[in-house]
Amino acid sequence: MRVAVLGLGRFGSFWARHLSRDFEVTAWSRSPEREVPEGVRRVGLEELLQADIVWLCPAISSMDAVLREIAPLVRPGQVIADTCSVKLVPSRQMLELLPPHAKLLATHPMFGPDSARNGVQGLPIVLHNLRDAAKELAWWRECFAGQQMRVLELTPDEHDRAAAYTQGVTHLIGRVLSDMGLADHPIATQGYKRLLDLIQQTCNDPFQLFLDMQHANPYTGAMRDDLKASLERTLNRLDTTGGGQ
Amino acid sequence: MRVAVLGLGRFGSFWARHLSRDFEVTAWSRSPEREVPEGVRRVGLEELLQADIVWLCPAISSMDAVLREIAPLVRPGQVIADTCSVKLVPSRQMLELLPPHAKLLATHPMFGPDSARNGVQGLPIVLHNLRDAAKELAWWRECFAGQQMRVLELTPDEHDRAAAYTQGVTHLIGRVLSDMGLADHPIATQGYKRLLDLIQQTCNDPFQLFLDMQHANPYTGAMRDDLKASLERTLNRLDTTGGGQ
Repeated sequence: MRVAVLGLGRFGSFWARHLSRDFEVTAWSRSPEREVPEGVRRVGLEELLQADIVWLCPAISSMDAVLREIAPLVRPGQVIADTCSVKLVPSRQMLELLPPHAKLLATHPMFGPDSARNGVQGLPIVLHNLRDAAKELAWWRECFAGQQMRVLELTPDEHDRAAAYTQGVTHLIGRVLSDMGLADHPIATQGYKRLLDLIQQTCNDPFQLFLDMQHANPYTGAMRDDLKASLERTLNRLDTTGGGQ
Repeated sequence: MRVAVLGLGRFGSFWARHLSRDFEVTAWSRSPEREVPEGVRRVGLEELLQADIVWLCPAISSMDAVLREIAPLVRPGQVIADTCSVKLVPSRQMLELLPPHAKLLATHPMFGPDSARNGVQGLPIVLHNLRDAAKELAWWRECFAGQQMRVLELTPDEHDRAAAYTQGVTHLIGRVLSDMGLADHPIATQGYKRLLDLIQQTCNDPFQLFLDMQHANPYTGAMRDDLKASLERTLNRLDTTGGGQ
């Protein structure tokens, strides 16, 4: 099977390298300065679209432009799989913009170069047959399960609802604590070290990913309101219980 | 050496059990329903004050009452060591309320039954010679270092400044996220699991400890303002970068 990866940002580069352990992988990036991982062959966009499956790894906010660009090149029966951290918006875009002869998978490998530093064992990946890709989904399900990933089938709506209150809140907390300028200290407790790890892990990702996860998931607005309300409630509770020491 | 522990709440009970591995430990609690850990002998308050060192483990907000109660019983040369999670307020109270013939240590073992589940190796403990206890501090320093704790000497002011932005922010985040009702989910990422661990670890402690850590540390007010400002700034940044998906 010929496997292609479109986009060589932080995640795309990681994903191309991961797939290249088992497959011949070609890759394309709009930015010529992006390095291609060892074992992956850089090709032009037309050659990229010769592959049996094309994994899309652009910024979420670039999906619309990318899909319009590849739509005329997509071949009948070819599988196009996105890997975006939100699922409703890119799924709608793929259904609208890609020709009906393309088979579509909506996926979300919920890890990256940091969390998969020691391998992908036990890490979650969400798969969804968006259009005519039942057989291909079953094949990749088997493949990823064989790599010990935790494979989950969720609809884009189920994914986004759950992701807002898991990944979404995690990245928001990481960015807020980073803004506070928290630093290590000799008296750091275990709990505090967990927070420092969290800051590092979330802030290693591009800021654009944070923005896109918050903006392109329809459920993160409610999550942010909830977080704000919980902070207010907790601070008020502190006020009303009085200080007095 | 006869070692005593006053207070058998969550931390006091843990601390008495820990010390009983190396010492003969007596304990006293105002609440008769508190269980005494195995290997620790429950005694009356007068007998408790026969020990060479008395570790005080009450709620921070009970320190004033406890100190007034034991003051007439404290013997010349006896060491009184508090273990409160804040240090300025209890240090001032001990200096004011305990007779000048008592030697005083201000300490903060920065762990508890959860974080020390697998032992105290590498966990931080803060020690300070508050009055006439240089020799005793050196002795306990050696003792705890022998147990592989990370022993740190900090003044109460240094401790409270650092604790506000380490332990203080950690417990505040834990309480806020708990208020949000976050729960586990099959798509939980590694980062999100860290947050769930944090909620559990901070919310296992009594709510009173949370209140006291926030109220009795003069530097936590600024920390809470910083957290609020960072959340506002991050949310505003999201607003001004626009959604548009």
